[in-house]
Amino acid sequence: MMLPIFIFTLLFATLSNASVSDFCVADTSLPDTPSGYPCKKVSKVTVNDFVYSGLGVAGNTSNIIKAAVTPAFDAQFPGVNGLGISLARLDIAVGGVVPMHTHPGASEVLIVIQGSICAGFISSANGVYFKTLNKGDIMVFPQGLLHFQINSGKSRVLAFVGFSSPSPGLQILDFALFANSLPSELVEKTTFLDDAQVKKLKGVLGGTN
Amino acid sequence: MMLPIFIFTLLFATLSNASVSDFCVADTSLPDTPSGYPCKKVSKVTVNDFVYSGLGVAGNTSNIIKAAVTPAFDAQFPGVNGLGISLARLDIAVGGVVPMHTHPGASEVLIVIQGSICAGFISSANGVYFKTLNKGDIMVFPQGLLHFQINSGKSRVLAFVGFSSPSPGLQILDFALFANSLPSELVEKTTFLDDAQVKKLKGVLGGTN
Amino acid sequence: MMLPIFIFTLLFATLSNASVSDFCVADTSLPDTPSGYPCKKVSKVTVNDFVYSGLGVAGNTSNIIKAAVTPAFDAQFPGVNGLGISLARLDIAVGGVVPMHTHPGASEVLIVIQGSICAGFISSANGVYFKTLNKGDIMVFPQGLLHFQINSGKSRVLAFVGFSSPSPGLQILDFALFANSLPSELVEKTTFLDDAQVKKLKGVLGGTN
Amino acid sequence: MMLPIFIFTLLFATLSNASVSDFCVADTSLPDTPSGYPCKKVSKVTVNDFVYSGLGVAGNTSNIIKAAVTPAFDAQFPGVNGLGISLARLDIAVGGVVPMHTHPGASEVLIVIQGSICAGFISSANGVYFKTLNKGDIMVFPQGLLHFQINSGKSRVLAFVGFSSPSPGLQILDFALFANSLPSELVEKTTFLDDAQVKKLKGVLGGTN
Amino acid sequence: MMLPIFIFTLLFATLSNASVSDFCVADTSLPDTPSGYPCKKVSKVTVNDFVYSGLGVAGNTSNIIKAAVTPAFDAQFPGVNGLGISLARLDIAVGGVVPMHTHPGASEVLIVIQGSICAGFISSANGVYFKTLNKGDIMVFPQGLLHFQINSGKSRVLAFVGFSSPSPGLQILDFALFANSLPSELVEKTTFLDDAQVKKLKGVLGGTN
Amino acid sequence: MMLPIFIFTLLFATLSNASVSDFCVADTSLPDTPSGYPCKKVSKVTVNDFVYSGLGVAGNTSNIIKAAVTPAFDAQFPGVNGLGISLARLDIAVGGVVPMHTHPGASEVLIVIQGSICAGFISSANGVYFKTLNKGDIMVFPQGLLHFQINSGKSRVLAFVGFSSPSPGLQILDFALFANSLPSELVEKTTFLDDAQVKKLKGVLGGTN
Repeated sequence: MMLPIFIFTLLFATLSNASVSDFCVADTSLPDTPSGYPCKKVSKVTVNDFVYSGLGVAGNTSNIIKAAVTPAFDAQFPGVNGLGISLARLDIAVGGVVPMHTHPGASEVLIVIQGSICAGFISSANGVYFKTLNKGDIMVFPQGLLHFQINSGKSRVLAFVGFSSPSPGLQILDFALFANSLPSELVEKTTFLDDAQVKKLKGVLGGTN
Repeated sequence: MMLPIFIFTLLFATLSNASVSDFCVADTSLPDTPSGYPCKKVSKVTVNDFVYSGLGVAGNTSNIIKAAVTPAFDAQFPGVNGLGISLARLDIAVGGVVPMHTHPGASEVLIVIQGSICAGFISSANGVYFKTLNKGDIMVFPQGLLHFQINSGKSRVLAFVGFSSPSPGLQILDFALFANSLPSELVEKTTFLDDAQVKKLKGVLGGTN
Repeated sequence: MMLPIFIFTLLFATLSNASVSDFCVADTSLPDTPSGYPCKKVSKVTVNDFVYSGLGVAGNTSNIIKAAVTPAFDAQFPGVNGLGISLARLDIAVGGVVPMHTHPGASEVLIVIQGSICAGFISSANGVYFKTLNKGDIMVFPQGLLHFQINSGKSRVLAFVGFSSPSPGLQILDFALFANSLPSELVEKTTFLDDAQVKKLKGVLGGTN
Repeated sequence: MMLPIFIFTLLFATLSNASVSDFCVADTSLPDTPSGYPCKKVSKVTVNDFVYSGLGVAGNTSNIIKAAVTPAFDAQFPGVNGLGISLARLDIAVGGVVPMHTHPGASEVLIVIQGSICAGFISSANGVYFKTLNKGDIMVFPQGLLHFQINSGKSRVLAFVGFSSPSPGLQILDFALFANSLPSELVEKTTFLDDAQVKKLKGVLGGTN
Repeated sequence: MMLPIFIFTLLFATLSNASVSDFCVADTSLPDTPSGYPCKKVSKVTVNDFVYSGLGVAGNTSNIIKAAVTPAFDAQFPGVNGLGISLARLDIAVGGVVPMHTHPGASEVLIVIQGSICAGFISSANGVYFKTLNKGDIMVFPQGLLHFQINSGKSRVLAFVGFSSPSPGLQILDFALFANSLPSELVEKTTFLDDAQVKKLKGVLGGTN
Repeated sequence: MMLPIFIFTLLFATLSNASVSDFCVADTSLPDTPSGYPCKKVSKVTVNDFVYSGLGVAGNTSNIIKAAVTPAFDAQFPGVNGLGISLARLDIAVGGVVPMHTHPGASEVLIVIQGSICAGFISSANGVYFKTLNKGDIMVFPQGLLHFQINSGKSRVLAFVGFSSPSPGLQILDFALFANSLPSELVEKTTFLDDAQVKKLKGVLGGTN
């Protein structure tokens, strides 16, 4: 059976305008919207918009928490814009920790590539769910709940995490409380922490007021 | 334990780009989208974008319905843009009424702050659900259904209503039928109202044709 | 009961700003977003934005597949932008076929206006669901699954299809495999089709490499 | 290249459990949920769950409105459950009308198969959008807004409508106001209709109180 | 014009099956689903399912935080199930505080009915947004972010809060950290709080380990 | 400051009922719904519901495609139910391939842990996007589009993929066309493949008719 090109092309031409919504590569030069960034023109999109190499490099863990989180959210990886998913890389040196934090806009699934992690989360009902994860184990952290990851082994940890949003957000508890201009008095009143404790951590993290 | 500032800051800097999606304060100078208005730059956002004082003033009820609805939707209160919620204030003088209406884009929850309201809605199945609400009572009106509120007491009513959308819309039945250019003939054919009735209300409400 | 115009108008004016979100007629001159195109100003919207006559004309079926799909997606019919629905017209001449395809972004419901169609889809679980549809029959094709329609009668087919998105997308299997620059070697490795078969169809459909 | 069956089958078996979510044919014997009915077991699903012939028969228009709406919502057509779409058939005899109504849960697209319709809707901003539609014309009615269809020609009308939900709901204005137990006093207070008008229509439509 | 009852009724009967999805009053005796609880039969639903009086009573603030939150979520108020909204009442005595917390599943809008509140939230980007709110002021707290409310005046505070979900969740920071079995060692490692501080608060709040 | 346990507990008790919606561990013994499976009782949920070790074991690639996909969807990993995310493991031996396929219900992000992959997808607009990915590279595949992964290196490939749904579905092209009861005649008519080609692959894959 022979299918003349020109005829198929004709059918195709009619429909191709409608197909731009397969994806929406972020044009981060424009203001974003509640659903994400406006879309780059399809004619300017290449495969490189859908590929990102930034997670191939270990994060710098030469810091006090001995850990690093490297995001591939829509701001770094415009191909995920509008697609309901993103990734991040987690490096945790021996003795390191990803401190208590939440993702206000997404659930997270973690997979351990190497090393051992003590990971956990706390529910609204105050329930505690934590466990030691080894290579190949996965754990899910429901949206918006406080959770943490600690290197519980004797070797460096490498893990990847997937999120249910291209821009999950990240609120690190200590930063929220101690690394900004939120007055110590307000921190103390709303957390019941002692003044000395608050001021100590504010000092360390550069908080003011 | 001492946490050098520069190190935490480094971790923080990496991640802060991804966090703009916590909120999306409406830039109402730009065209809106199906998901809401584009976002104001985070660097220009202040706490005042998230606070609104317009509901603190009683609406003017010196009118024939003796009632006023004061909205805090995204157009008035840009901080709710993209967040799936908004509010409005309801003032109903003695003898006043919020006439039969729908919100095409949201469900509503009402709380009575003072006074008594006879409130109700009608379902698609033609079911009638109405009741007298007193101070502190709340009632939910499912999305898109005809509903009403009548001051059923002897004192002024103050109530607040929450909506499940930053732009719930509001279609007041009498306005839709009688306060525009919809020809009387079409109104009559589609509502079975008498010509005299239609023309009387068109006259009152300023409808033409 | 008399309702002074000016008073109602006052109430109305307060609320009209919030009502633009009833609809969002696409301004296709602006970049689209994950939720659709930005909205045309309400003041410039007319009834013609909500009406489209492009499906009133039979598609040209003088081609090898003897079929034509005429879309009324948001790119053709800006009124559906943001409303979660669109339509298309299906003309299939005697002996014609709408080849195996998917809609990545929507489910589809088809209604036969005239003629008979053998229509079917295949599930993720490899299940086969096909049946002959006659005038007045409807069939639903779940989102993203391979499906097809064949004129199984002796007269021309007219059908309309509704989609659960204003931009459902359309991926025609043969075009995806044989009508572009995807190298034959990759097609063969990923489909197990013979080289001769791949090259034959690439030749017919204008594929390269 | 030969692909041993048993090996492919093995791969397939692993994955088939996950594929049930392609569709969710309604089990209407179980209580529904906010997202629709629970799913019938995939093993009991046949092609007949996805095909419906109920729209092939003209609705009975031997009534005073000379019109009939025949739905293919999830309750009638379980295959659309969870898929975000449904259909209905519209028959309007000469002189007939589909009275002013809303769909609280869906937008609607109408296509005229035969005859002429004067169709329109009214926006929250009180805007009037109506036009005469002829064979092949389509019109979209945004979610939750009052709209109507009148046979404006000299021949019977046949039209089909698609909805952006498997259960769009239907609230007919006259039924909501006059065909139930909603007290006349409440109708009058909330619509400004005259007592005589309300009682007349309540009488006709069987309303009480 | 006379409209015979039996005929309208006939039209109505056809359609009423589809209308149950106007609302979905929670049947909390059945297991819930990701979209909420299964629906109570429409025939058993009364207006009382849509009305709740539990917020009419002041919460007991005779406690150390001198505050009380009284929820009207789907578990307490089944009428909001599936409708994307809920409410709560906030009582804060002089000197009281609603401690630092998040709602993992909803944004919140607060309205001050009486008294003065110092309310604030912290963004993912570590931004601090707080302000004193007086009677009639409203403030929005985006989903999942840490926020707090303090009685900053000299009289009792009454406020109501709306949520963009029927089950917003509530994670109070101090409870999550100190009022359960999460081992002190894990708390310390993931928050950088001193051991003495952690043990002190665990002692107060009844935490173990 | 001392916070008596009993008082906090009182506040907590009031609120704990509302918190079950943090997560919804699948009770796979009950019928699923369009939003996922009903929830297991919170009192029976343990950390093990949120952890899964099934991806820690290499899939069996001793088959003709020399590849294996091991899913952690809601059916295997009940903790992701309702959370909008899932994972899978990809093992591809030297010379192996994950054949052309789609996920009807999710977008996918892939990360290469070891080896090299030639991965690509084809858009609705017939665009071809493919590239060689090395260790640490990630690539996103938009929802519903045909895509593939080929081991393009000289060593075994290990990769993990995240999905934007707990039940993304998987439709492998060759299985859909050749491994079931879809009649050869229909396959040929809808794909333009030669009869010999169709019968050859049906033979290999166990297809009938």
